[in-house]
Amino acid sequence: MSSETMPNFLKKRALLTPDRIAVYFQNEPITFRELYEKSIISAGQLTSIGVKRDQYIGVLLKNHIDTVVILFALQLLGVKSVILNNRLTSKELAWQLNDSKTSILITESGFDELKQKVTIPVITKDELFAVPTDVPVIQEEINLDDVCTIMYTSGTTGNPKGVIQTYGNHWWSSVGSALNLGYTETDRWLCSVPLFHISGFSILMRGVIYGMPIILHHTFDAEQAIEDIRTKQVTIMSVVGTMLFRIVESLKEAQLPSHFRCFLLGGGPAPLPLLEACLEKKLPVFQSYGMTETSSQIVTLSPEYSISKLGSAGKPLFPSQLKILLADGKMAAPKEAGEIVVKGPNVTTGYLFRPEATKKNLVEGWFHTGDIGYVDEEGFLYVLDRRSDLIISGGENIYPAEVESVLLSHPEVADAGITGVEDETWGQVPIAFIVRRDGASVSASQLQQHCLENLAKYKVPRTFHFTELLPRNAAKKLLRRKLYELIDEGREKE
Amino acid sequence: MSSETMPNFLKKRALLTPDRIAVYFQNEPITFRELYEKSIISAGQLTSIGVKRDQYIGVLLKNHIDTVVILFALQLLGVKSVILNNRLTSKELAWQLNDSKTSILITESGFDELKQKVTIPVITKDELFAVPTDVPVIQEEINLDDVCTIMYTSGTTGNPKGVIQTYGNHWWSSVGSALNLGYTETDRWLCSVPLFHISGFSILMRGVIYGMPIILHHTFDAEQAIEDIRTKQVTIMSVVGTMLFRIVESLKEAQLPSHFRCFLLGGGPAPLPLLEACLEKKLPVFQSYGMTETSSQIVTLSPEYSISKLGSAGKPLFPSQLKILLADGKMAAPKEAGEIVVKGPNVTTGYLFRPEATKKNLVEGWFHTGDIGYVDEEGFLYVLDRRSDLIISGGENIYPAEVESVLLSHPEVADAGITGVEDETWGQVPIAFIVRRDGASVSASQLQQHCLENLAKYKVPRTFHFTELLPRNAAKKLLRRKLYELIDEGREKE
Repeated sequence: MSSETMPNFLKKRALLTPDRIAVYFQNEPITFRELYEKSIISAGQLTSIGVKRDQYIGVLLKNHIDTVVILFALQLLGVKSVILNNRLTSKELAWQLNDSKTSILITESGFDELKQKVTIPVITKDELFAVPTDVPVIQEEINLDDVCTIMYTSGTTGNPKGVIQTYGNHWWSSVGSALNLGYTETDRWLCSVPLFHISGFSILMRGVIYGMPIILHHTFDAEQAIEDIRTKQVTIMSVVGTMLFRIVESLKEAQLPSHFRCFLLGGGPAPLPLLEACLEKKLPVFQSYGMTETSSQIVTLSPEYSISKLGSAGKPLFPSQLKILLADGKMAAPKEAGEIVVKGPNVTTGYLFRPEATKKNLVEGWFHTGDIGYVDEEGFLYVLDRRSDLIISGGENIYPAEVESVLLSHPEVADAGITGVEDETWGQVPIAFIVRRDGASVSASQLQQHCLENLAKYKVPRTFHFTELLPRNAAKKLLRRKLYELIDEGREKE
Repeated sequence: MSSETMPNFLKKRALLTPDRIAVYFQNEPITFRELYEKSIISAGQLTSIGVKRDQYIGVLLKNHIDTVVILFALQLLGVKSVILNNRLTSKELAWQLNDSKTSILITESGFDELKQKVTIPVITKDELFAVPTDVPVIQEEINLDDVCTIMYTSGTTGNPKGVIQTYGNHWWSSVGSALNLGYTETDRWLCSVPLFHISGFSILMRGVIYGMPIILHHTFDAEQAIEDIRTKQVTIMSVVGTMLFRIVESLKEAQLPSHFRCFLLGGGPAPLPLLEACLEKKLPVFQSYGMTETSSQIVTLSPEYSISKLGSAGKPLFPSQLKILLADGKMAAPKEAGEIVVKGPNVTTGYLFRPEATKKNLVEGWFHTGDIGYVDEEGFLYVLDRRSDLIISGGENIYPAEVESVLLSHPEVADAGITGVEDETWGQVPIAFIVRRDGASVSASQLQQHCLENLAKYKVPRTFHFTELLPRNAAKKLLRRKLYELIDEGREKE
């Protein structure tokens, strides 16, 4: 834990390099001075509607320059931003808003259903921008221990938890990345991953800390990404496997220009054929490993090893440390698989309002990821499996326990188990195994409908398999790896 | 103040990029793995001779690869290194060793006189390297609050004070520099400034933190510097004005190769004609401002302003802050001159064993430099005058009060005043004004001899002027600026 004081990031950046481009969005450039001025105005409008320092303020917005302005306005005010995944259902969002004790929600049109489900004030960005500005109280200095953002992540227990990310977490993550990837005045980072994910939000923070232009896309589009890499001199782009796959496809015979130097690849281990295809096309891919709790990448493959250690996620960034623990708590030998445990100033200080979960996952500064991997003799990490049963689908995390608990809430379901299967487009997709209650006849399509009402679409199982009994161990713990064996028993719907 | 834990810097760097070059010295490259291995052996030898964690250990060594190894060995052991200026007299060094409670001194041949003057064990590096190695207890982690180095600096009171530099100070200084100058895999930093100065030591720390090769020179030689910039692909070099002046002279009609991107210029404001000569020769000069207490540069001119703001030292690095205070403690308006006051995680936590001096100079995290300057409307710092009466001669600080107190210790001197005059080669040199005791007839050459016995050579006044009375104000404070007016009264020796 640091208690270091620093100048407010955006204000300092606007002082240092006011005329550099901060963000390109829809071909419109905006300088750091303009971004600062807009954020000050927005901070005044937030003050007008009653936003105060240290409050939790919800942000449910799509990738847009307005989102950037609002996120920095909240930082100027010293507010804790609860940044919400806009692919979630109203029910899921309402739960997170309640859990985080959020005072006010800032959103945009398209999320109208949510307004009915919550009791707190909800304001759209258009409404906010129309409010007369009050004089905001700007936090001239920030303490690196101060909470900057909250992002929700589920866990093996199924309960989403708010991950606390301090200014220090974001700062150290940015610095660790710069020391690994290098940083020069000519760098420009393409952000077509969601700003509500740590992958996107961390690009925003790097932009301000480095003084680096960001090319912000509303959503990912392979053709547009290739176009902007070429015409806007993009040097770095954050991708997950499915995005990289589509870029490789769209490139066909073409190559990327030489100024482009890095695809930072996160969101789960990439399939080897994809990495080989990239090698063939001379696409510079930097495998990395990280999560919401580590404020983005914590392990990244250094450039000089990208070929000889293909498939490895690399070594922990300079400020961070890594160890592999066996089930008995002992350190694993090289090449011996165990739980990946990490430490560093980019690692979360804990889960919001969840001292028990924090205590369980953070032991003497070491964060127990639940992921399985090994380290070779030279210290390179190989990730074998994410968080016991975590399913990563198109870069989004799906926690089986969360989907199971929705299925179990259906009156005709006696037991439910979720596991992931490989999918060409998404990497993985979830599938469900269901034990009906005696005499019940609920169908796959009825269960699908039930899930759609309660879960973000990407979490809804692709197929439902009905069976007599789920594999559980003596302690009745579900053995999700054994679910595969049931796959041909009771498939009803693809 | 940070209490962040990080892996031991050199050990981590050796794990991350073992095969990269760490240091070139006399054309011999050494990788980070080799540097780590040598430092481990040296740490074992230090353990053998009784060096223990948390001790203060003196280091009196010239620029050499052995010095690098010993400095990192001390870090591996968690020892506080008291790094001594090897241009000081034995008397000055003995005083600093005593003041810092140093347990053991590590030195080399050529400093034999000092051994007679101290009671602590003194060991040369050759003797150390011949000792059988014990098993060292390596500090796997360091806390950024831990003390790394002590470097002495005098002040206006004339008493040298040990400046405490933590690991965090060095870390943040390195990071602040990287965010400003950028850092790429192709960077190589030429170090021909002394490692015992923060200007040289900070290059060592950057090397390990960035994973960047350092080209280390025994002493500065303009021809050799130009040669190595060309043949060893040096991209950055730290210089003071006199060094840059000689490089400009040596270059004659030639230019530097395009891979060279930065002369980081410290050690006092550079004369404008020199900066203009550099502009003409297309030498990329980055003016900077810093001191031992800020762990090297804290204010640096960003590349895009090197021409339009010629003569400015720039803006405070990202983690740092700056303000100008008037005599009444109020903030100065833009362009209004006052005391330069700085803050940031690279700023010292205080003076060793000097709580009073610490309290006086560090107020709520703000360090009062004593230097005079102003900030323009855009936030660029212009340094007008270093520390009230500080004389900077060839990059070395000379504190008038220290020289005066040596002169006053002479039985035939009634009063003494020191001020600096401009000098083509050294920037400034000290000159002395002397009031003899009644009836005394001490000569300039006798006083010069007295100074040579008690002061480093560069501190010895160039000329001695005898006079009847020194200008003092009502409170008897010496008015050093008024000494100039006496210059023609009593010159005796040039």
